[in-house]
Amino acid sequence: MSGVGVPLAVSLGDPAGVGPELIAAVWARRAESGHAPLPPFFVVGGARLLAEAGASRGLAIAIAPITDPAQALGAFPNALPVLSLPGEADAPYQPGAPDEAGARLALASLTEATRLTVSGAASGLVTGPIAKSRLAAVGFAHPGQTEFVAQACGVAAEDAVMMLAGPRLRTVPITVHIALGAVPAALSTALIVRRAKVAAAALSRDFGLARPRLAIAALNPHAGEDGRMGDEEARIIAPAVAQLRAAGIDATGPHSADALFAPRMRESYDLALCMYHDQALIPLKTLDFDAGVNTTLGLPIIRTSPDHGTAFAIAGKGLADPGAMAAAIRMAGECAARRATL
Amino acid sequence: MSGVGVPLAVSLGDPAGVGPELIAAVWARRAESGHAPLPPFFVVGGARLLAEAGASRGLAIAIAPITDPAQALGAFPNALPVLSLPGEADAPYQPGAPDEAGARLALASLTEATRLTVSGAASGLVTGPIAKSRLAAVGFAHPGQTEFVAQACGVAAEDAVMMLAGPRLRTVPITVHIALGAVPAALSTALIVRRAKVAAAALSRDFGLARPRLAIAALNPHAGEDGRMGDEEARIIAPAVAQLRAAGIDATGPHSADALFAPRMRESYDLALCMYHDQALIPLKTLDFDAGVNTTLGLPIIRTSPDHGTAFAIAGKGLADPGAMAAAIRMAGECAARRATL
Repeated sequence: MSGVGVPLAVSLGDPAGVGPELIAAVWARRAESGHAPLPPFFVVGGARLLAEAGASRGLAIAIAPITDPAQALGAFPNALPVLSLPGEADAPYQPGAPDEAGARLALASLTEATRLTVSGAASGLVTGPIAKSRLAAVGFAHPGQTEFVAQACGVAAEDAVMMLAGPRLRTVPITVHIALGAVPAALSTALIVRRAKVAAAALSRDFGLARPRLAIAALNPHAGEDGRMGDEEARIIAPAVAQLRAAGIDATGPHSADALFAPRMRESYDLALCMYHDQALIPLKTLDFDAGVNTTLGLPIIRTSPDHGTAFAIAGKGLADPGAMAAAIRMAGECAARRATL
Repeated sequence: MSGVGVPLAVSLGDPAGVGPELIAAVWARRAESGHAPLPPFFVVGGARLLAEAGASRGLAIAIAPITDPAQALGAFPNALPVLSLPGEADAPYQPGAPDEAGARLALASLTEATRLTVSGAASGLVTGPIAKSRLAAVGFAHPGQTEFVAQACGVAAEDAVMMLAGPRLRTVPITVHIALGAVPAALSTALIVRRAKVAAAALSRDFGLARPRLAIAALNPHAGEDGRMGDEEARIIAPAVAQLRAAGIDATGPHSADALFAPRMRESYDLALCMYHDQALIPLKTLDFDAGVNTTLGLPIIRTSPDHGTAFAIAGKGLADPGAMAAAIRMAGECAARRATL
């Protein structure tokens, strides 16, 4: 990872959530035995918060204030590098008590971390968990961080593909944050093909899979059982699989979703493309609740995030598991290293 | 189990599928160390098939032809008891090659095993896997075995509740074999309440849970996020939870489905009530693909089944895992023993 020579940028997330304490906890374990060294990163904003959040978990976190991302590499082994935000004032650490000042800090951190990654000063972006409704209240006009980052990169929302990855499974939901009843009308052969192509290219470029194997899930029970329970398999999904195969992509399906995530089936593919949010998220969280990474494929930058929310209810109590934050940082470092050697 | 004094009845399933070989394999391991003894059972029909199916797996299965279920108890330790069907002719074992004669045998076996259980001559019914379309071709007019058994018991289809159970999770799908797009319209507060009450009563009576804890899943991503992605949670599901609680049932929800099956959440309930087929089946098969039992709650009889199909493609090849068949037989025995002591 050190061969990359450029650190990752980590945004703070909502300071009243679990983001700061998890960033601090991951840095504190930066050289844990049995793991490859953690890729060097810096946090954007929140120096005092990070120290206090670490202290809430019994961790004495040395902070290295930096003014340029390049300073992070040298500082990282001995202290957590934190880049100050312009005009940033010290904010008190109030876990579990989100407020407007905290939302503004979260938004400023996200904005600057994204800008630095797009500019190349950071090799990848790891975003801490935010509360969308709280960010919306201070002027954030995007459905989520994924859409914000896509726009900052000049990429159409359709081509910014959310992938959820755990140690044993990767999934992409073709439709995401819509009501279940709206899913059938939102699906189209073109959308499946477009997202699958983005995903296949990203798995090759960023994840080192020369010819990724994509398993495309069915929408209906038993894959519709020859049309007896829905026709989307024949009308929408099977044509998408055929188009992908014609384009040289190793795609199979539509597969009955209930059997698709069993151990033996999981060995047969690198990515499951799912038709709706819970079809992609249920198996992932059932298997690996505390280690899921949300990554955005199809961007000119690397972007990952722990696949959990702000968890205000447990913030500051030492209960939040840092596994997903650590996995998000490690994945961003690995993807950035692959791009650096292309 | 021997205290019950009445054996279980096992129907053969399609003779070209994996049913016969799995029944033979389970009987062969009837006294495996580390397990409680297998409850005694008899198979209805297919004596020669069972011996040949066992031989296909390298098992020498002694068959004990019986003419009365009561003879099964004495025979079981030394031979697999098989009750002949009236007019049954020897059928050749043709794994993977289903035909009409086999479908007729499967239907006759199911019909007689059900009749014997309803009459009390058997303490519970375990059904081997059938191919619905093949049974339909020989006059079977039900969507599946569950509905057939419910009708034989004089129970309305709405009150015969399918539960899927693995070693680490139990789920009930409120809607079952319908297209995903038809799910929202098929859900109602009344249906959820009705099925939940049947399930709660059955978990008390047959599974020994004095006050079962029911977790009710949401339909939409993030449980609809306060109505931003669907209103079924507020309009249909939350009122059902309230009605159940008012009736003294320990029900919670609606819970975001993606987090509901994570290890810590699973510890908080005994049964997850799911809104559609794959919501219930994905987590179950992800966790325990080869050990899932399909059981019908709300009947005057005990009925279980391995939660897999005929698997014609691997029948006779020694590849099918007997775990689910063994679990179905054990569960039927345990439930029957509880009823016998009520």
